[in-house]
Amino acid sequence: MKHLRSIEELTPQSLVALLDLADHMAEVNARSIPKVPALRGKTVASLFFEDSTRTRISFETAAKRLSAETMTFSVSTSSVNKGESLRDTVETIAAMGVDAFIVRHKSSGVPWQIARWTEASIVNAGDGWHQHPTQALLDCFTIRTALNRRTGFDGLRIAIVGDIKHSRVARSDVQAFAMLGAAVTLVAPPTLLPPSLDGWPVEVAPDLDAVIGETDVLYLLRMQRERMNEALVPSLREYTARFGLTPERAARLQKHALVMHPGPMNRGVEMAVDPSELPGSVITQQVTNGVAVRMAVLFHLLGSGASTAGEE
Amino acid sequence: MKHLRSIEELTPQSLVALLDLADHMAEVNARSIPKVPALRGKTVASLFFEDSTRTRISFETAAKRLSAETMTFSVSTSSVNKGESLRDTVETIAAMGVDAFIVRHKSSGVPWQIARWTEASIVNAGDGWHQHPTQALLDCFTIRTALNRRTGFDGLRIAIVGDIKHSRVARSDVQAFAMLGAAVTLVAPPTLLPPSLDGWPVEVAPDLDAVIGETDVLYLLRMQRERMNEALVPSLREYTARFGLTPERAARLQKHALVMHPGPMNRGVEMAVDPSELPGSVITQQVTNGVAVRMAVLFHLLGSGASTAGEE
Amino acid sequence: MKHLRSIEELTPQSLVALLDLADHMAEVNARSIPKVPALRGKTVASLFFEDSTRTRISFETAAKRLSAETMTFSVSTSSVNKGESLRDTVETIAAMGVDAFIVRHKSSGVPWQIARWTEASIVNAGDGWHQHPTQALLDCFTIRTALNRRTGFDGLRIAIVGDIKHSRVARSDVQAFAMLGAAVTLVAPPTLLPPSLDGWPVEVAPDLDAVIGETDVLYLLRMQRERMNEALVPSLREYTARFGLTPERAARLQKHALVMHPGPMNRGVEMAVDPSELPGSVITQQVTNGVAVRMAVLFHLLGSGASTAGEE
Repeated sequence: MKHLRSIEELTPQSLVALLDLADHMAEVNARSIPKVPALRGKTVASLFFEDSTRTRISFETAAKRLSAETMTFSVSTSSVNKGESLRDTVETIAAMGVDAFIVRHKSSGVPWQIARWTEASIVNAGDGWHQHPTQALLDCFTIRTALNRRTGFDGLRIAIVGDIKHSRVARSDVQAFAMLGAAVTLVAPPTLLPPSLDGWPVEVAPDLDAVIGETDVLYLLRMQRERMNEALVPSLREYTARFGLTPERAARLQKHALVMHPGPMNRGVEMAVDPSELPGSVITQQVTNGVAVRMAVLFHLLGSGASTAGEE
Repeated sequence: MKHLRSIEELTPQSLVALLDLADHMAEVNARSIPKVPALRGKTVASLFFEDSTRTRISFETAAKRLSAETMTFSVSTSSVNKGESLRDTVETIAAMGVDAFIVRHKSSGVPWQIARWTEASIVNAGDGWHQHPTQALLDCFTIRTALNRRTGFDGLRIAIVGDIKHSRVARSDVQAFAMLGAAVTLVAPPTLLPPSLDGWPVEVAPDLDAVIGETDVLYLLRMQRERMNEALVPSLREYTARFGLTPERAARLQKHALVMHPGPMNRGVEMAVDPSELPGSVITQQVTNGVAVRMAVLFHLLGSGASTAGEE
Repeated sequence: MKHLRSIEELTPQSLVALLDLADHMAEVNARSIPKVPALRGKTVASLFFEDSTRTRISFETAAKRLSAETMTFSVSTSSVNKGESLRDTVETIAAMGVDAFIVRHKSSGVPWQIARWTEASIVNAGDGWHQHPTQALLDCFTIRTALNRRTGFDGLRIAIVGDIKHSRVARSDVQAFAMLGAAVTLVAPPTLLPPSLDGWPVEVAPDLDAVIGETDVLYLLRMQRERMNEALVPSLREYTARFGLTPERAARLQKHALVMHPGPMNRGVEMAVDPSELPGSVITQQVTNGVAVRMAVLFHLLGSGASTAGEE
């Protein structure tokens, strides 16, 4: 495996292998000095054409804990503003000596384009509405750790709630959760579902009340205010009324059920309850696990493991 | 001691202990390789909601010289712009593994709020008009070094001149200087003094001429142009006439008197003389000492010393 | 040699010595762990008053590979916005412990000004239209490597094409190429030449067709759209017609001829052909060599070599 651009590049076996590797990285992170020399001499460059401080810091922390050098390239201060082509930007940065690019871009497919222009490994940190594979991996890791589901997600019911249509997180999560055997239900108004769900291994529910009492994992997506302006939802209040996690709905969750969110949360909208008062919230653990999972991905792509993995 | 949010968290003894520790750090900084492994494995995150390159670089340099990892979070490129709550931002960054947050915010009290949401240590790098304790510590360190005042500031006369009302530096300095025994005089027009000085261990003088010949330390505050627009001073020229350090006033300084400024200076306003021609100027030393003092603070909070300090 | 602000600070001997040192650094960069402890304990500060991510990253990568600490100061987030003087900014950063400043500024001469205010070494990373000496060094290094010209550029014909008037790259390149013995021809419309070429060791050609078949190195400069607005060129289309590298002209290049560009390219304007299809393009190598050359410069200024060089 040379790149991680989509969950589709993984098999159930390689996905589980990454999660097992992330277990080891989580153990490294628990040490008093959470650093290993695994990627000494390697350089990981962040190439973010969309701002995302939290994701960028998570990847850079992962790289540093493996002793890689980091290079940050953010578009706001770059020659891209001078009209330089994306290709020239990539080739220029690559020419300084980069082993992996972490790429975020508002257009779907950019990580694949970039892979044609450089020998470096590409990790997709979000391309348009398309994919965000490390988010899906950290979500899988969080679920299997919290529910002690090391042998897979067979029989597990996961509800993903909200703006599926515009969500790369949802696309990657659906694929990864299904790959591990979970039964995934999408909960959203028709306007926030993709035009077609052909090939999606999911069921659909009309509102949160239909699934709240039976779900093992409740995954809330961020509801962006723009959707209201685009007339995709009548109002945020009505959205919350049908799809928000309110105190009443929280009370109907099963005892063991997890509540997850990719962040940043819109409190009072999809998260209409204080998550710190939800016993099943693992939202903070998602962030913590993100570092371990990204360490696993970088090590798998760039470490000695790379020589024996051989997909791509 | 777990946090440093205000000078009020210190005792005269713990303040002096920090200055003694800073002496040791200054000695480290004088080495050909100014780096010690003291905080290896620790992570220090800058959380700056107000821009301040100089303060941020000073803290990050201090952290790096102690071999800590640094993480920079500046609000301009962050999810805070997407409406994320301060609490969610803090909890998210903390979840990636942070041992200390360096916090600057335009609102007083934010460092205390943040301390409720994370296990990490908090260092206040400026909150509104309220506190900037490491500035006060570096000012104390600079005075005691330059005037060889290791046993305290008894009998020392310090004049703080300018916009006291809006100055967190003034508030922290007054407390720290008084704690060490100095006699502090505030020199400002009534419009730039706080509404009440109850409980402030200070005297007040009406203009700079009243104190210039007798002061041991002349501490000039930055005069911000906004104050003129707010009608708090009639004009910058009139401000300089009564409160600026002009060549005439500089000539009246005592031979041993120090001139200090927290930076950035407004030349021609409060600093109406070239500071490089003032024999008593220790403004550059303040900056240099800032690194040593911040190393001392970080080491005290996060190093092995933390286990034996035990205030908070 | 304490500073590198202009090619004029070099002799043919010291220029060649830097290129020889860069050979060694390129060998370091080819190692599996491209890092040496040469500048451990040194701090290199980027002081960029003009944005240039690529140049800044190149210098910072060079510094890190020599194990120096880096400090990034970019004007957009700095006190310079608060009206602080350039001098105070420099003195403040220097006071935190800086061994070398990498300076970029839109005004000619700023690196010389700064050198009067600090003990640190100054490397000019571009001052107005004046100088960009490390670009010239990396260009020399690229030519001598690609054409195997270790003994000098005698008899080599180099054409520099485009907006010479506003180009610091052209000024530094002309001096460095001539110092090594090359015959340099400037190719530009009269409006894009400096008012006087007195003292420039160059010839002038009226358009690219006049030299394309005879040049050994074709060096294209970036054509900025602003020049059209300033009425210095009638249109970009007409510029390309006379001065752009079109497929027709590329076919007339000599087999061994190199094509170079300092980046970022304006594709379709000066570069009216896909450079990846030019066998003689060494544009990517220029970027790669930039890191090695900057390592050589930093090591020469700050490493043990500094004590024996002694120009300045």
